[in-house]
Amino acid sequence: MQSRIKFGMVGGGEGAFIGEIHRMAARLDNHYELVAGAFSSEAERSRRSAKTLGISADRSYGDFQEMAEKEQSRSDGIEAVVIVTPNHLHLRIAEIFLKAGIHVICDKPLSASLEEAQSFAEFASKSDKIFALTYNYSGYPIVRHARALIAQGELGDLRTVQIEYAQDWLSEKLEDSGHKQAAWRTDPEQGGQGGLLGDIGTHAFHLSSFVSGLQPTEILADLNHFVEGRVLDDNAHILLRFSGGAKGMLWVSQVAPGNENGLRLRIYGSKAGIEWSQENPNYLKFSPLGKPSQILGRGSPELAESAAKVTRTPPGHPEGYIEGFANIYTEIAQAVYAAREGKPVPQDVLFPDLEDGIAGMFFIEAALESSRNDGRWTGIAGTGI
Amino acid sequence: MQSRIKFGMVGGGEGAFIGEIHRMAARLDNHYELVAGAFSSEAERSRRSAKTLGISADRSYGDFQEMAEKEQSRSDGIEAVVIVTPNHLHLRIAEIFLKAGIHVICDKPLSASLEEAQSFAEFASKSDKIFALTYNYSGYPIVRHARALIAQGELGDLRTVQIEYAQDWLSEKLEDSGHKQAAWRTDPEQGGQGGLLGDIGTHAFHLSSFVSGLQPTEILADLNHFVEGRVLDDNAHILLRFSGGAKGMLWVSQVAPGNENGLRLRIYGSKAGIEWSQENPNYLKFSPLGKPSQILGRGSPELAESAAKVTRTPPGHPEGYIEGFANIYTEIAQAVYAAREGKPVPQDVLFPDLEDGIAGMFFIEAALESSRNDGRWTGIAGTGI
Amino acid sequence: MQSRIKFGMVGGGEGAFIGEIHRMAARLDNHYELVAGAFSSEAERSRRSAKTLGISADRSYGDFQEMAEKEQSRSDGIEAVVIVTPNHLHLRIAEIFLKAGIHVICDKPLSASLEEAQSFAEFASKSDKIFALTYNYSGYPIVRHARALIAQGELGDLRTVQIEYAQDWLSEKLEDSGHKQAAWRTDPEQGGQGGLLGDIGTHAFHLSSFVSGLQPTEILADLNHFVEGRVLDDNAHILLRFSGGAKGMLWVSQVAPGNENGLRLRIYGSKAGIEWSQENPNYLKFSPLGKPSQILGRGSPELAESAAKVTRTPPGHPEGYIEGFANIYTEIAQAVYAAREGKPVPQDVLFPDLEDGIAGMFFIEAALESSRNDGRWTGIAGTGI
Amino acid sequence: MQSRIKFGMVGGGEGAFIGEIHRMAARLDNHYELVAGAFSSEAERSRRSAKTLGISADRSYGDFQEMAEKEQSRSDGIEAVVIVTPNHLHLRIAEIFLKAGIHVICDKPLSASLEEAQSFAEFASKSDKIFALTYNYSGYPIVRHARALIAQGELGDLRTVQIEYAQDWLSEKLEDSGHKQAAWRTDPEQGGQGGLLGDIGTHAFHLSSFVSGLQPTEILADLNHFVEGRVLDDNAHILLRFSGGAKGMLWVSQVAPGNENGLRLRIYGSKAGIEWSQENPNYLKFSPLGKPSQILGRGSPELAESAAKVTRTPPGHPEGYIEGFANIYTEIAQAVYAAREGKPVPQDVLFPDLEDGIAGMFFIEAALESSRNDGRWTGIAGTGI
Repeated sequence: MQSRIKFGMVGGGEGAFIGEIHRMAARLDNHYELVAGAFSSEAERSRRSAKTLGISADRSYGDFQEMAEKEQSRSDGIEAVVIVTPNHLHLRIAEIFLKAGIHVICDKPLSASLEEAQSFAEFASKSDKIFALTYNYSGYPIVRHARALIAQGELGDLRTVQIEYAQDWLSEKLEDSGHKQAAWRTDPEQGGQGGLLGDIGTHAFHLSSFVSGLQPTEILADLNHFVEGRVLDDNAHILLRFSGGAKGMLWVSQVAPGNENGLRLRIYGSKAGIEWSQENPNYLKFSPLGKPSQILGRGSPELAESAAKVTRTPPGHPEGYIEGFANIYTEIAQAVYAAREGKPVPQDVLFPDLEDGIAGMFFIEAALESSRNDGRWTGIAGTGI
Repeated sequence: MQSRIKFGMVGGGEGAFIGEIHRMAARLDNHYELVAGAFSSEAERSRRSAKTLGISADRSYGDFQEMAEKEQSRSDGIEAVVIVTPNHLHLRIAEIFLKAGIHVICDKPLSASLEEAQSFAEFASKSDKIFALTYNYSGYPIVRHARALIAQGELGDLRTVQIEYAQDWLSEKLEDSGHKQAAWRTDPEQGGQGGLLGDIGTHAFHLSSFVSGLQPTEILADLNHFVEGRVLDDNAHILLRFSGGAKGMLWVSQVAPGNENGLRLRIYGSKAGIEWSQENPNYLKFSPLGKPSQILGRGSPELAESAAKVTRTPPGHPEGYIEGFANIYTEIAQAVYAAREGKPVPQDVLFPDLEDGIAGMFFIEAALESSRNDGRWTGIAGTGI
Repeated sequence: MQSRIKFGMVGGGEGAFIGEIHRMAARLDNHYELVAGAFSSEAERSRRSAKTLGISADRSYGDFQEMAEKEQSRSDGIEAVVIVTPNHLHLRIAEIFLKAGIHVICDKPLSASLEEAQSFAEFASKSDKIFALTYNYSGYPIVRHARALIAQGELGDLRTVQIEYAQDWLSEKLEDSGHKQAAWRTDPEQGGQGGLLGDIGTHAFHLSSFVSGLQPTEILADLNHFVEGRVLDDNAHILLRFSGGAKGMLWVSQVAPGNENGLRLRIYGSKAGIEWSQENPNYLKFSPLGKPSQILGRGSPELAESAAKVTRTPPGHPEGYIEGFANIYTEIAQAVYAAREGKPVPQDVLFPDLEDGIAGMFFIEAALESSRNDGRWTGIAGTGI
Repeated sequence: MQSRIKFGMVGGGEGAFIGEIHRMAARLDNHYELVAGAFSSEAERSRRSAKTLGISADRSYGDFQEMAEKEQSRSDGIEAVVIVTPNHLHLRIAEIFLKAGIHVICDKPLSASLEEAQSFAEFASKSDKIFALTYNYSGYPIVRHARALIAQGELGDLRTVQIEYAQDWLSEKLEDSGHKQAAWRTDPEQGGQGGLLGDIGTHAFHLSSFVSGLQPTEILADLNHFVEGRVLDDNAHILLRFSGGAKGMLWVSQVAPGNENGLRLRIYGSKAGIEWSQENPNYLKFSPLGKPSQILGRGSPELAESAAKVTRTPPGHPEGYIEGFANIYTEIAQAVYAAREGKPVPQDVLFPDLEDGIAGMFFIEAALESSRNDGRWTGIAGTGI
């Protein structure tokens, strides 16, 4: 067994949702140990969070710059940092830690603007440290199996990709009621111009590429904000074209009552179709043309190796959101272990990286541009998968 | 009890699917009696069908023109005709029967071209006979309830309408294998340029207007035919804009393996959302914002009057496709009964009519135009509901 | 085409539920014509019903005895009678019509007491007329397919049969509020001692034998009435043993809130399992051991011949309760057509008959006896399938 | 934050399933630290497991007796032990550790025999250490909500409880093929006479009491082993009677193809019914009589406090088996923290304890006795909840 990866966290203090998710994901397989943090831009709040989390006082920082410096200079300094701040801070922080020789695990989307993302990418390409991005939905075992089915040709030539990510929690103007999560997500400064595209659209976009293996080439978007007084979009209707001729449709909404976290993916090819829904994530419907549909369970003996190895429990013992997230963390750990020995990221780990992050920013940018142009097909570059 | 409506049928002979559906729908509530027919353009085939159906030999016609003339001249001649031929013949036949003073029940879509539809509409507007179009999916009781919920304001201001109609039976080039249904539907001459838009897209389009009460104003389409060698489209990705500001998304496909007859409708407003799927048509998911989702059953005591009155069985005793279809037929019968007394179509019957048919043709035309223009937003007129 | 079967009806007048279901089932495939009736024991009510149904005044009877006599003496008299009265009248009426040479279609259960049923069986065995019993749930196409799968050995040796039929409509003392359906069903005089066993338990019991092909040999029952003041049972917990060693469990309830008409059947063998629910009756879950579960649809190309031939619509066009009921009627018609030519009931029709009715009465009797004996295993005879 | 609980583990080495589940559950909320273990009765195997788990060599034991002694004598010795051996060893080990002043977390069922369980209970009642039993399914948030609904009277007077726990993995004689999990579970020496009752039946039995709050008084069982050559039962059909008059039905099977881990609970009262299935554990169907059924989600704002506090993620982000298990662990930690200060187990923690374990053993014993007596109602004592 490798020694655990000591890590720190920027953001994710009291009242944050995603910070604790990252911590649970890091703990689940026992590859990580949280030892430092700048949990909030408010020093007192950061300290309280650190105490609650059992971080020693001298490693509770009020400022990420200070944290990077001090940790870099310690012999037992952190080996990785997790960034779970509002979007506009991601890359400023990431750059500092990479420079300090510390691996970076960054929450999505990559940044609040494409410009910043591109300039960061130029810098990061020269770093030998790991940069991982937590598009966590790609960590579900059965999602991995779907990817394998398509890669093996079980669906034949892909024809259409139907993706959607629908929520309802922003159906009213929650940001006016002091709801912290709603506030920064609907503020262009902190969340970026993308609004819901950055918040959840990039998840859907990444997932569809991850599973289908298709390269998007053009996008057409009709973006709307339905809640009066809201600046950023809360609903997106998007068409996609992929290289090779497949087409796609993407619906993203945060104003669809009855949808809690409705990320759903359906892909149809000449030989078969698949359907998957994040809210019941252990099953995949697989429909070979002309034959009865099958319900493939995470944990079945027929699972692809790439799916089976990220599975923890027997069939019928449901794995959920945290387990999927933890799979990303564990794969990052495998890359860190390899890095300790000077080796590159192993071939068979599939955690999202900078390239995926850039692709997401191009997606947001192209969608905004298409919508500004009243729904003109707009080229989408850089979306390597 | 009114005396039953004697009717004849054009098309729908041996090997046809939809003809027998119409006959079952007509029989279910005992308002109709089939007494004449020109079931096929092949005389011998027509005669065989008539015999099987118990039609007397002198009312089995080889030709619809002849049928109209002879029936018009009989004292016990038919009061209505059902047209279930390929699309391009619908209106030629309808015109003849209307001229003969016979009510017309026509299968969808209205016609194979908008031009022909408009010219027919001009003629028909002067007729005092009934012209009904069997967009049958609007006949399901719980669809009626959904319409009532929205009309009563239970969903608040409508924001987005997500419609889809996906099938898989044309995933391969079935039309080359002598499959009659596939052959005429994929032939522009018989089915029209609309391809799958005419065959199933108009169903979805009508249903979304029927339930939402929204008036579509603009459409943007990306149409494709994925099966090699096919002339007409077999997949359509469409965006919609409605008057009042709501937006919509419509997916129509006949090449999506695992989808048998997947007509699904979801509508979201500021106060609640609804979801319905034709394949399990007795239930509606109703999600008031911030409250648990409810499963509304056809047959529940809370059902709207307009839904309850088209319901035949107690809760939990599923009604299906034929019952929904029969509801349209029974409502047409009520209009015929009214007509017998010189009265107009009753206010509370909701069967689709010529206006709905024209709307469907505008929809097809606008979608084709938008797609030809690489997905330009295109105005859609005449879609009164 | 054979000439339609002229039939009459006893019971099923105004306010009845099941009478209209029988009439719709009879109409759907056009094998029957309703020409006479004694729709109610109240003469005026019977006359009103007849008028509504378009029955000529001279064939509207106030009394079933009179109806049998007069119809027998007409040259155009009825060929069959449908009995939809409360249970205790079924066999008294059946006997009169059989004696008059008229085929009998009787609603379930056979009677209100085993004694009466046995004495009738003795009489009926000497009649050459058809006696059919409408355990209608055996008419669903996919139920037929399930039966075929088991008969073909696809499940291997059967091990356990889990059946349930749960409703909620008698959760309160509806019979006190003037609800006609509730009143006679909870009255031992009219419904029989069996209470819910007669009303819905026999449906479940018949279905499990029909599909499994298993012969029940012993039964153990714990019967209860939960609603205060109710005389008959409204909940039954039953264990079953079948010849050959399979075991079963049967739950019947009319006091289970949230269950509308929850008839569900699951059968497990050494090689596979199946699951079916009446409320979504077009699909069967088929789970071959060690392989993914399959969703078999009514209308799939792989359907057994016995299922395909009772299917009316393509895949994805749901058939419901009335269609299943109509399948029983159409099979009875095939037997009547055979009888016209002096031929026996065709081998391939599967409508339930007197033997099934007697089996149901034995089931009720044995369950009551077992429960009186505090749940002693009790032999169950005469349950030929 | 309290300092983490140092714990050791007996059993759960290489190839074990449940050991790693316990470790993940212990890690998730960061209340525990694994520092010692006797992971296998084979010394070499135990050592390998310890090494893999990062346990220092001097705390890797070949023998649990030795482990208890040495840990007791260390100043940094373990505060708790987790027992995940075959059933027949549970209490022998528990006794040793309790005597050593170490809290015990024991996998279910309590033991392989009632006799041993009772004698242990006598001993344990004198210990001031915690004894917790991991009936983990009671840890799901929505299960807690179901319990709260019933406790608050939302279901009215309870009438019937339908429980089932069906699996298929023992449909063939897996124990002959060297499958370790199957081997000990089907061996009366190691698993106990209860067979599947001990393995999964006690889970279902505990869950039904936990949620319903009902006290079982009598049981009637028909137990079977269907797989040829198997000594222990692999299918159980059970009826239950509860104090207060409610009745129940329990099906337990390991030979039902298509059932992966099918633990399902349905409870019906005079005012409402609930339904829950472990395989999609984040939702509860709640059906108030005469109103539409509701889908209650884990994470909804209306959740009972007792459920909300064991919830980690927002609505629609599914929590699974490990999270439910971890809730039990975290509640045990709260009891350990209380014990550190000499306080009793807090009132609001709900982890199963010795009393629940004894109840499960009485359940097994009574079921075996009833079945031996051909299904006689048999009293079931000691099942306090």
